[in-house]
Amino acid sequence: MSPTVGVIGGGQLARMMVPPAVELGLGIAVLAESEGSSASIAATAVGDYRDAETVLEFARGVDVITFDHEHVPQDVLRALLAAGVAVHPGPDALLYAQDKLLMRERLSDLGLPVPEWARVTDPAELDAFLAGHGGRGVVKTPRGGYDGKGVRVVSAASDVSDWFVAGESLLVEELVEFRRELSQVLARRPSGEIALWPVVESIQRDGVCAEVIAPAPGSAGRIADVAADVATSIAENLGVTGVLAVELFETTDDRVLVNELAMRPHNSGHWSIDGSTTSQFEQHLRAVLDLPLGATGCRDPWSVMVNVFGGLAPERVPLALADQPAVKVHGYGKEPRPGRKAGHVTAGGEELEDVVFRARAAAAFFED
Amino acid sequence: MSPTVGVIGGGQLARMMVPPAVELGLGIAVLAESEGSSASIAATAVGDYRDAETVLEFARGVDVITFDHEHVPQDVLRALLAAGVAVHPGPDALLYAQDKLLMRERLSDLGLPVPEWARVTDPAELDAFLAGHGGRGVVKTPRGGYDGKGVRVVSAASDVSDWFVAGESLLVEELVEFRRELSQVLARRPSGEIALWPVVESIQRDGVCAEVIAPAPGSAGRIADVAADVATSIAENLGVTGVLAVELFETTDDRVLVNELAMRPHNSGHWSIDGSTTSQFEQHLRAVLDLPLGATGCRDPWSVMVNVFGGLAPERVPLALADQPAVKVHGYGKEPRPGRKAGHVTAGGEELEDVVFRARAAAAFFED
Repeated sequence: MSPTVGVIGGGQLARMMVPPAVELGLGIAVLAESEGSSASIAATAVGDYRDAETVLEFARGVDVITFDHEHVPQDVLRALLAAGVAVHPGPDALLYAQDKLLMRERLSDLGLPVPEWARVTDPAELDAFLAGHGGRGVVKTPRGGYDGKGVRVVSAASDVSDWFVAGESLLVEELVEFRRELSQVLARRPSGEIALWPVVESIQRDGVCAEVIAPAPGSAGRIADVAADVATSIAENLGVTGVLAVELFETTDDRVLVNELAMRPHNSGHWSIDGSTTSQFEQHLRAVLDLPLGATGCRDPWSVMVNVFGGLAPERVPLALADQPAVKVHGYGKEPRPGRKAGHVTAGGEELEDVVFRARAAAAFFED
Repeated sequence: MSPTVGVIGGGQLARMMVPPAVELGLGIAVLAESEGSSASIAATAVGDYRDAETVLEFARGVDVITFDHEHVPQDVLRALLAAGVAVHPGPDALLYAQDKLLMRERLSDLGLPVPEWARVTDPAELDAFLAGHGGRGVVKTPRGGYDGKGVRVVSAASDVSDWFVAGESLLVEELVEFRRELSQVLARRPSGEIALWPVVESIQRDGVCAEVIAPAPGSAGRIADVAADVATSIAENLGVTGVLAVELFETTDDRVLVNELAMRPHNSGHWSIDGSTTSQFEQHLRAVLDLPLGATGCRDPWSVMVNVFGGLAPERVPLALADQPAVKVHGYGKEPRPGRKAGHVTAGGEELEDVVFRARAAAAFFED
C-alpha cells in the first residue's frame, strides 16, 4: 500500500496538498476543525486538534502526521511521538514557529541576521527599548498571531497596554527600514536532503501577503545566496522537516534580516503550484514521508501570484477565465467573508510587466 | 456555491479530474463501480451505472453529469436528459464513441478520411471484404472494446468465427499501412468554443498506448493542420462536449485517417497535466460546465509520457524520484495486477532525446 499523510487542520494549505497526493498516488487524510472545511474532500475526521485523544485516534490511520497550521499544542505533539507516530515537522522544531520569542532567541544564538529585539514583561521595559530605537518599534505576541494579527507598530508602551499580562512576555523589535520583503521557501527531509526554490518578493497589504513575484527581481547573486544560506542554516539547526518559509526583510542598507518563520507550505510559495517543476505542496508531502525531493526549477522566467480576498463569486469565475485563459485560478472552497483569503491566481511568462498585468487582471474580477 | 461535476465511473480518468476540481474550487462527485476505486477520494456513491435509478439518484446532487468511460447505456443517458439533468457529452454524441460501426458510417457520410471499411454480418461477407483488400483486415466488435480488446487482425473469416452472432454486425477495416499513430485531443464547450492541444504521437504496444510524444515530431504544418481540421469537424458535426480524442493513422503514403474516437480525457492527453498550461482534465471540467476554456500551449518544447503497467510498488517510488527529480510520477491508486495501467510518468524539456530518456528511465523503475 502507498503511504498516507495525515494533515491536522482543514484549511487551504491542507486542501492544496490534495492534488499532489492524488497525482503521486499517495493517501491523504485530514483532521478538520469542522464540517465543510476547505479540505473537506480529504477530511476523514472532524475534531479538536488540542485534544490528544482525538489526534491520537486520527493518527492511527496514517503513516505520518503533518500540519495545515502551527497551533497544535506541544503536549499533543509529544503524545504523538510517545505513541510512536512520525510527526513532521516535529515538536522540537515547531516550537520555534509557535513562539516568536523563542525563535528570536534561537536565531540570535545561531548568529543569524535578525532585527534588534528584546523580551519585555512590563511597559517600562518596552518604553526603554523604544527609547533606544528611535521611539518606535514592533510589538508581537509570542504566540497565536498570523496574517498581521498579534502584531502592532507602537510608539509608546501604552499602545499595547491591553497586551501586557502579568508573568507573560512580549517581543519587541526595531522598526526595520526595509526596501521590500522577501521569502525563502525550502523543503527538508528527515534524512537531511534540502531543496530550495528561488527567493521571492512578497508584497504585503495590511500585514497580509497580497502578491508574490518569483523570483524576486534583481535577487540573483548576493541576495539569493544570503537568503538561501540563512534558510538552510535555520532548517538544519532547528531540525525542520517538511516545508520551511523564512520571511525576510531586505533593508534599505542592503542587509537581509529574518522576519518570521513558518514550518508548512506558505502563501509565498503558492506560485510554485503552477510555476515550478515541483510545487511546495508536493514537496511537503515528499519531505514528510522522507521521499526524495523534486526539482525546484522555474517553469517560466517570471511567476506572479495575486491573492483573492473575500470570495470567488461563481458568476465572476467565467469572466476571469475568459479574460485570462493562461492564468491559473485557484479557489479554496470557502464561504465568502470580507478579507478572508478565498483563493489566488498565478500567471507566468517572459516579461515581468506583462505577467504582473495578467495576474492582477484576473484577480481584479473577484474584487468587490 | 461553486458548481459540482458528477463523474460516472471511478477509474483513473475520474481520479485525474480531482486535482483540477480542487484547484479551481469546483465540487466533484464520483459514482464508482465499487469501494476502493481509483477515484475513491471523490466517490460519493457506489453503484451500477447501468441502473437508471442509481444514476438519477447520483445526479440529484450535481450540476452536470460526465464520464470516466463510455459504457453508460443510452437509455440511462436519455433518462437523465428527461429528468432535466445536464449531460456532457450527450447521448447523441456519445453514441459514436460507443458504436464503432455507427462512427464509421457517420464519418464516411461527413467525408472525413477513414480507412476502407464494411459492415459484415456473416463469414462470407467478411471473406469477400478480405479478398478485396489483400487478404487481410482488422475486425472490430462495434461495442465494448478498449485497449486492443475486441480488435483482431485476420486473414480469414474463420479467425473470428467466435465473434459472429446471428443478427449482429461486425466492423471490418482495411489493414492500414501506417508510419505512426497520432492523436488529436481537443475540448468543446456546449456553447461552441473549441481549444486544441498540438497533435501528438502515440506509440502502442500490444494494442495499448505505451508512450506519447507531444507534439508529434515533424508534425508542424500539414499534419498538424489536417489533424486539427478533422478533429474540429468531428467535434462540431457530432456535437461533442467535453474532451474529444481522435486517434489517427499517419499512413505510409502521407494520408491521415481516423482510427478511433474517445469522448473523454484520453491516455494520449495525459502529458498535458504537466506539459500544457491547461491539462485535459481541467479543460474537461471547464468544458462540461460550459466555462471558458484555458490556454493549451506547451510548457516545454517536448513532453514525453510513458505508461506504467502492473503497479507502482511503494519501495520503488523513492528510487524513481531520486533518479529523476524533474520527472512527474503519477500513480492511480490501484491494486497491482499484471498489464494493468497503474500510472504514468511525464518528462519535459528542450531536447527530445533527453526527454525520452528521462521519462523511460523513471518508468523503468516500475517494470517487473
